[in-house]
Amino acid sequence: MEKKILKAGLLGLGTVGTGVYKLFEAQKEEMIHKIGAELELKKILVRPQSMERAKGIVREGIELTSDWRSIVEDEEIDIIIEVMGGTEFAKECILAALNAGKSVVTSNKDLVAIDGKELLDTAAANNCDFLFEAAVAGGIPIIRPLKQCLAGNHLTEVMGIINGTTNFILTKMTLEDMDYQEALALATELGYAEADPTADVEGIDAARKVAILASIAFNSRVVLGDVYTEGITRLTKADIEYAKEMGWTIKLIGMARNTETGIEVRVHPMLIPSTHPLASVNDSFNAVFVHGDAVDDAMFYGRGAGELPTASAIMGDVMDIARDIRFNCKARINCTCYKQLPIKTIDECNNSYYIRLMADNQPGVLSNIAKVFGDHNVSIAQFIQRNAEEYQAEMVLITENVLEKDFNAAMEQLKALSIVKDVSAVIRVYGKNS
Amino acid sequence: MEKKILKAGLLGLGTVGTGVYKLFEAQKEEMIHKIGAELELKKILVRPQSMERAKGIVREGIELTSDWRSIVEDEEIDIIIEVMGGTEFAKECILAALNAGKSVVTSNKDLVAIDGKELLDTAAANNCDFLFEAAVAGGIPIIRPLKQCLAGNHLTEVMGIINGTTNFILTKMTLEDMDYQEALALATELGYAEADPTADVEGIDAARKVAILASIAFNSRVVLGDVYTEGITRLTKADIEYAKEMGWTIKLIGMARNTETGIEVRVHPMLIPSTHPLASVNDSFNAVFVHGDAVDDAMFYGRGAGELPTASAIMGDVMDIARDIRFNCKARINCTCYKQLPIKTIDECNNSYYIRLMADNQPGVLSNIAKVFGDHNVSIAQFIQRNAEEYQAEMVLITENVLEKDFNAAMEQLKALSIVKDVSAVIRVYGKNS
Repeated sequence: MEKKILKAGLLGLGTVGTGVYKLFEAQKEEMIHKIGAELELKKILVRPQSMERAKGIVREGIELTSDWRSIVEDEEIDIIIEVMGGTEFAKECILAALNAGKSVVTSNKDLVAIDGKELLDTAAANNCDFLFEAAVAGGIPIIRPLKQCLAGNHLTEVMGIINGTTNFILTKMTLEDMDYQEALALATELGYAEADPTADVEGIDAARKVAILASIAFNSRVVLGDVYTEGITRLTKADIEYAKEMGWTIKLIGMARNTETGIEVRVHPMLIPSTHPLASVNDSFNAVFVHGDAVDDAMFYGRGAGELPTASAIMGDVMDIARDIRFNCKARINCTCYKQLPIKTIDECNNSYYIRLMADNQPGVLSNIAKVFGDHNVSIAQFIQRNAEEYQAEMVLITENVLEKDFNAAMEQLKALSIVKDVSAVIRVYGKNS
Repeated sequence: MEKKILKAGLLGLGTVGTGVYKLFEAQKEEMIHKIGAELELKKILVRPQSMERAKGIVREGIELTSDWRSIVEDEEIDIIIEVMGGTEFAKECILAALNAGKSVVTSNKDLVAIDGKELLDTAAANNCDFLFEAAVAGGIPIIRPLKQCLAGNHLTEVMGIINGTTNFILTKMTLEDMDYQEALALATELGYAEADPTADVEGIDAARKVAILASIAFNSRVVLGDVYTEGITRLTKADIEYAKEMGWTIKLIGMARNTETGIEVRVHPMLIPSTHPLASVNDSFNAVFVHGDAVDDAMFYGRGAGELPTASAIMGDVMDIARDIRFNCKARINCTCYKQLPIKTIDECNNSYYIRLMADNQPGVLSNIAKVFGDHNVSIAQFIQRNAEEYQAEMVLITENVLEKDFNAAMEQLKALSIVKDVSAVIRVYGKNS
């Protein structure tokens, strides 16, 4: 066991950084018992224009500085906590810290989803820890459980509700009958959505997280660019209502599957059975559902964002690193991607599909539609018809499991039928083997 | 980093032991990548009368023996896995293993809930790991998340559905309209209940687990004898139906709270809001719900028992120990009980209460009953009355939050009223500050 007083440097004092500061204060008396050493926050990186505000938050005795090098090069500092966000500058700081022999904790999913391998390799080369529990699903313990607790499994599926903004919007649309624009406006008003909500509503934030989850669950590197991504902007109340009537709930799902022919990894709206544990995850809560050959189904639920929940995940990592320093076992668990599995395109994935369309309201229409599907080996599992207008009917179908490529071919042919007036919605549907 | 081939000895080849054997086989090729070393199962302890059966399960190359000392004293063996159950003999084996310098993994909740401190102290004295993730909630990662991921929290509540047998029975009573005896018979038929179901249905199994959870969550030792325990044998369909009508679901809950006046720890049936994440945990699934000052609410869900789910938790521990051996950092995290908090009796706990009673069906009855409660500072939050017979009415009340001692005093007085014919049921009700 090495030295008795460990010191940390914090890069960033926004929402999450302030939470980390608060937890250092709240846990001050506990540290010696929990990790067998004192652990102090020594310096915080603050932008010059935020210095005055920072002085109002941080107690005396902790140095505020705008010079990042004075933190990552401080010989007394053992652990660097990066909570600035963004990619280029954050990466420069983290690499410098690792190369200076300091272990690093980050909540930076943007960075880990792209440069995770380089960062983990740099950590290993310097015999340091690089931990990022907070980068996925905020306060929910998921990375350590996947890497350690479930290590005895061959994991085949990880799927989750991993974006709180979109889950809040969909919950309002599902339970409170709002339309998309109303729900988005409310999310913005309550601070759940940013002024520019693109990264959330287009699924990009969720795609970063599912890339990280897939890499860890399947021991094979998946990056943001590998993830097929669709957002929630085209979802309508009508589809949510039809789905509900048929026993399904629509969620924005990040899903990764380890199949015999490669990894599937994608983010898109999905109908999941209303009895599935993820279906009752509402508002801004997140949850990650895991399937493994030994553990069967497991789920992890909690707050996916926010000052203190995210800081909770960061402090867990910080305290773990402190133990590793005391026991001289840094880099005990670093990169776990020892396989190189192929990644499938969305065309090569299987799904069931929900389709809503307008067609002529006349005898034989369903049989014509069913024939097109049948010709492409697509069976129909559920069907509802509503008379929308005098000569037209709205039809909702849910297919059996089918290869997306075959489904798309069927849809092309369907759209060409003269009896089909409009295909209003196509949404993927969850199935065990979809 | 030390030696490259690690060896384990397995004590017991029942359901869980067989699962552990299967996972050693399934993960054989993965070990070197996951833990940086080979990890082999060298010997298995089997009772003489089970030797023939064991030979049908275990491949050649693994030694089957009925001599436990030949395993725990084997100098080549680094890790002992105890999955026999029971207390005395298991304890003797575990202590001998730890004293021989071997790290130990167990699923033995009976033992840990009573002798956890002695076992952890012995492990620390011998610089060994003693891990028991499988002892609580089967395959669900909960102990490592509490000890590590959530270490930055002051945890105030841990509650869960931690007995699959009783949750199966209650699910059948709630969703399929069975009565207790029918549901128990089905549980027995399907193998969810043992021939003698006492430990499950009387809440003793859950009490062991909640004692372990409370010890870890609150950093203060709680043992089985500290846990107030009531089972589910007196629950009726009538109460489940009334609860449902009023927006509640009845579950057998293991609950521990860290209050300013001490730790509350108990197992009993409880009405929880039907919107609470635990309310939709059905069949034999388990879930543990945690509240902390930083993470807010979190929940862990999965299979609480079974061959492979339990073996999954054990293998996670085994692989973690293997890493600790490689990095020479055994005993990195052992006993985390550094406080000595007082434990409250059930009389000193606060709850809301559900009461079902028969009373004379005449004007003024409710006001008489409400007056008795009012005199003891018990307010009534919800009320239903049904005319049961010509002269009698069945009343269901749910109180506001009150000290159990005060509630009991009110109930004594209530039972003495001539208008009250029978108190059919009293069940505690969950509230944030109950």
